[in-house]
Amino acid sequence: MGFEIIAGGVTAVPGFQASGVHVGIKQTNKTKKDIALIYSKVPAVAAGVFTTNKVQAAPVLISKEHLQGGQVQAVVANSGNANACTGEQGLGDARAMAHAAAFALGLEPEQVLVASTGVIGVPMPMEVVLPGIKQAAEALSEKGGQAAAEAIMTTDTFAKEIAVRVNLGGTQVTIGAIAKGSGMIHPNMATMLAFVTTDAVIDRLALQEAVKKATEKSFNMITVDGDTSTNDMLVVLANGIAGNSPVSLESPELTAFSEALDYVCIEMAKAIARDGEGATKLVEVRVQGAKTGDDAKKAALAVAKSSLVKTAIYGSDANWGRILAAVGYSGADFDPAAIDLYLQDQLGEITERMMAKGAPLAFNEEKARMILDRNYIIIIVELNQGPAQATAWGCDLTYDYVKINADYRT
Amino acid sequence: MGFEIIAGGVTAVPGFQASGVHVGIKQTNKTKKDIALIYSKVPAVAAGVFTTNKVQAAPVLISKEHLQGGQVQAVVANSGNANACTGEQGLGDARAMAHAAAFALGLEPEQVLVASTGVIGVPMPMEVVLPGIKQAAEALSEKGGQAAAEAIMTTDTFAKEIAVRVNLGGTQVTIGAIAKGSGMIHPNMATMLAFVTTDAVIDRLALQEAVKKATEKSFNMITVDGDTSTNDMLVVLANGIAGNSPVSLESPELTAFSEALDYVCIEMAKAIARDGEGATKLVEVRVQGAKTGDDAKKAALAVAKSSLVKTAIYGSDANWGRILAAVGYSGADFDPAAIDLYLQDQLGEITERMMAKGAPLAFNEEKARMILDRNYIIIIVELNQGPAQATAWGCDLTYDYVKINADYRT
Repeated sequence: MGFEIIAGGVTAVPGFQASGVHVGIKQTNKTKKDIALIYSKVPAVAAGVFTTNKVQAAPVLISKEHLQGGQVQAVVANSGNANACTGEQGLGDARAMAHAAAFALGLEPEQVLVASTGVIGVPMPMEVVLPGIKQAAEALSEKGGQAAAEAIMTTDTFAKEIAVRVNLGGTQVTIGAIAKGSGMIHPNMATMLAFVTTDAVIDRLALQEAVKKATEKSFNMITVDGDTSTNDMLVVLANGIAGNSPVSLESPELTAFSEALDYVCIEMAKAIARDGEGATKLVEVRVQGAKTGDDAKKAALAVAKSSLVKTAIYGSDANWGRILAAVGYSGADFDPAAIDLYLQDQLGEITERMMAKGAPLAFNEEKARMILDRNYIIIIVELNQGPAQATAWGCDLTYDYVKINADYRT
Repeated sequence: MGFEIIAGGVTAVPGFQASGVHVGIKQTNKTKKDIALIYSKVPAVAAGVFTTNKVQAAPVLISKEHLQGGQVQAVVANSGNANACTGEQGLGDARAMAHAAAFALGLEPEQVLVASTGVIGVPMPMEVVLPGIKQAAEALSEKGGQAAAEAIMTTDTFAKEIAVRVNLGGTQVTIGAIAKGSGMIHPNMATMLAFVTTDAVIDRLALQEAVKKATEKSFNMITVDGDTSTNDMLVVLANGIAGNSPVSLESPELTAFSEALDYVCIEMAKAIARDGEGATKLVEVRVQGAKTGDDAKKAALAVAKSSLVKTAIYGSDANWGRILAAVGYSGADFDPAAIDLYLQDQLGEITERMMAKGAPLAFNEEKARMILDRNYIIIIVELNQGPAQATAWGCDLTYDYVKINADYRT
């Protein structure tokens, strides 16, 4: 690895401040933080990826608009209300949120991105949101990263943050991130918010390219319940404070930056999968030997997404037939008679082969159960058809998933 | 309706006998029937539709081969073992099952179709299957339809059968069916077996066309958990005993036959959805006003399939935002600002509009809950984009689904 993992999240990066405060959007819980603010002391180059859902929440529409400018200095995000399916009023409210943050920070509204997560179809309680944004601005600090990570949580059970340091042509550059996930998580961006900060000097095209690539390998390869939300976004702000020699599409340093960004996004994505609603186990599905990358992706996601595989993992049942069936309906091109199938623990200390050349093996049930009883399980599907591979992440499907979602709105 | 619903299933049709016996494939339950046999006294024209999974069980491969002949006189089916992912031995076992049935009935093996459902990857216990088929042949009777329906059940909680009588050009023709479903149910054929008998005189092309159309509207529009199995099949046997004037692709009578077959298949499909593993409610999703039939289908299936919608229905939570989000990621072409959304009870006595022109309405929560507390719930999505419509069926997602699937294999 050409980078070093360090403590912290978005505020581990020089020139960034953040905060997370409770303002009362989450009325059912009087103490949980519900507004997060991330602020760069200087204008930052920005790039983003947004939900592909046809139904897009107001903050998604406004943030896409504001990203057109390419220079952003703050992100205001709230949990507890998604400001989705709220019509014209919702658009006005999202604009007002950007305006309030801009006013408090001395910026133009176009320099502020807006993100929301929570209940759909309920108007934003602007009477608490607007003063709340002012409060969040006052609380900004260079140690506020974790508070911001907490403030974007909905049914998440732990705050998600990470930071790495990478050497770009002799200059230390830092990348930090916070994210939230939990329900409605599925490829092509789900109710997932991820904010990445960096002090790298990088131009917009290179940043957009790196973000796109990282998303393909990370957030688009996780699945909790197959639902894609109206509110997902990943945005990266690069404030250039590190003073490295500028990274462009032609720079050799783009590779190192991309590698570090990939790692940050993959770890955030895995944290989201691990924290899937009701999940007790993280499942990593590695599909190898595919004809094309697209085949590998389809197969890996189909296995990670299968309710039958997910419930079997929950029950520590080595039901490899369900894995094979999922590969079979994934749309991937392969020969069923060539498949090898393995279960492995996280560190690769225990590996058990379940199938060889498409035929079931008399595997060691006890060893399989030892692997399946852990909280990080690797499924390896070797298609033996070509050179391509892909990895997807998901979680088990449990009683608690049903419990959480049978009565979330009320 | 140009047809009349009558009692019974496959043996409500003249010239057909059936049986269901316990032979010991299901070792965990010493009394449950596990071999079904359907027999036509005269050779029947046959047509079928099979799983689209790349991994196809041995009985699927053998039955497709035997269907090439176009004339079939028996179907032997077992539950408890899917004979899938069993390699060369599995193919031999499926052939041996056809052979045993043919020997007992005085037919050629090519005149027998084979179907299996149950655990994947375990060799068929041929020592009980072969004598069991003989036993099933001895038990054949004109009243054996229900026993056959019971013998193909796995985690199904009730046997599924139906029969209708339709007038084709002045002659009464009967169509009967049995089916099983429960887990791994999803469009494009799932662990679903359906056997349809009819005494109609119909040629093979017309029968194949009618079966294909009926499947598109019924079995391909239901979803329990999004998983498509290795073993699905629907086969129709037409023994011609009714003596109606022959139905071909050009006959005006094909329409009446098709309507009756559609009804039979839709009712069987709905019974499968209602009996989804752990399900307590049947959900009908009607998408209207779509630009194309494909858009309508995609949207209807996405809503019926959404884990978040399914858990909300379980919890009687009128979470229309999840419905809208599912339409949004379905891939259907529509304008979010034009959508109307309704909940309705089975008989259309209570209707509650949740959204109009893409905006949420202050709906009556009590009325919505009255609808959602029933065991048959209709979700109507009016896209207001064009003339096409489609209906999909699914079920709620409950604790029991997780329970059943966390430990099915062991």
